[in-house]
Amino acid sequence: MLPAVIPEFKKQYPGIELQVMEAKSDELLKAILRDDISFYVIPRSQGELPVGLKAESIYREQLLLVAEESMLTEDMFLDESSVLNMTEGKRKNRCVNLSKMANLPFVMLKKGHAIRKKTDLVLRQYGIDPKIMIELSSCISAVQLAAAGLGVAIVPQRAIDALGGMERFNCYDFSVTPEFWSVNAVYKEDMYLGRAERFLIDLMKQKFNL
Amino acid sequence: MLPAVIPEFKKQYPGIELQVMEAKSDELLKAILRDDISFYVIPRSQGELPVGLKAESIYREQLLLVAEESMLTEDMFLDESSVLNMTEGKRKNRCVNLSKMANLPFVMLKKGHAIRKKTDLVLRQYGIDPKIMIELSSCISAVQLAAAGLGVAIVPQRAIDALGGMERFNCYDFSVTPEFWSVNAVYKEDMYLGRAERFLIDLMKQKFNL
Repeated sequence: MLPAVIPEFKKQYPGIELQVMEAKSDELLKAILRDDISFYVIPRSQGELPVGLKAESIYREQLLLVAEESMLTEDMFLDESSVLNMTEGKRKNRCVNLSKMANLPFVMLKKGHAIRKKTDLVLRQYGIDPKIMIELSSCISAVQLAAAGLGVAIVPQRAIDALGGMERFNCYDFSVTPEFWSVNAVYKEDMYLGRAERFLIDLMKQKFNL
Repeated sequence: MLPAVIPEFKKQYPGIELQVMEAKSDELLKAILRDDISFYVIPRSQGELPVGLKAESIYREQLLLVAEESMLTEDMFLDESSVLNMTEGKRKNRCVNLSKMANLPFVMLKKGHAIRKKTDLVLRQYGIDPKIMIELSSCISAVQLAAAGLGVAIVPQRAIDALGGMERFNCYDFSVTPEFWSVNAVYKEDMYLGRAERFLIDLMKQKFNL
């Protein structure tokens, strides 16, 4: 998401240097507790954070299952009409029935990534011990490999958008109520967020919370 | 590169299951010495490999510097005419003069990535101790952040192509002779490569060695 806000941030605060790090959630947590960073952005809710940290929502994002067409057979889909009823006809994507997908290969992110944690959790709910074809460090690679048919992948929508959007891939919901998560800015409750930091968080909200 | 070859591989060898890993070069080296994998793909030449491993070229790929337009000033470019002379007018991209870029911020891959090693080496040749704005685990993210103006990045062409190609970004050569590296399949010299593995390597050569 950073590429979308940097140009405007630089225009507004030309003198301020952005120091950015990309890391796993536990490293980000350590960094903020040490005051090495003033905030970080993560799909983790208030309830999952230690006391003293505040989560402020930047945007909500859908999670989708990406698959190459021939990977899925008709019995792996939920009945269209019943699903449509439940969401008042607003559904864009067909909905797969994960309980029928226990034998499918999966393309995963490496452990430590939020989407991996979420995928593990969802599959465990269905009693699935997935056959993992590859563990990646990038959601974008996961979309590409799933689209090529190496396995199916559960990814956040932003990775799909980065590659040209949902029209370019076979994207499916994987639960009757489409899954979303909130991507939050996390900072210390008692810490003063400077004007530049506040501007950046507000800019992200404005750009992504459509 | 895997997404481009998986569909054809699956068609040719529907019964064979691809087991794929993504890892840093030292982990891949360990894995092949333990016979956990039969080959790996890496931009590393024969001379950089331990005895007993063979590097077979899959394709050659250009390395480019990506920058947001306003990051570079005219004095950071080599004189167009002299450069053109030296390459017989075949150059597509303008060529930056790295020695004038010591004060620019850099977007880097994390240590352990081949392109990071290469970038460190090139900058050291120019006596540059770069100001690193962020260390990433994906070349694609590096292109996006460089294009947004966080810093300049040296990346392999494949990352640029994955995002729509050189026309979409400001891409520059960073040495008078454009830099290339060879992406190689590496396997044990005394190890039998199965038919499926051979097919996959040949398929990659055919798809990428254009």
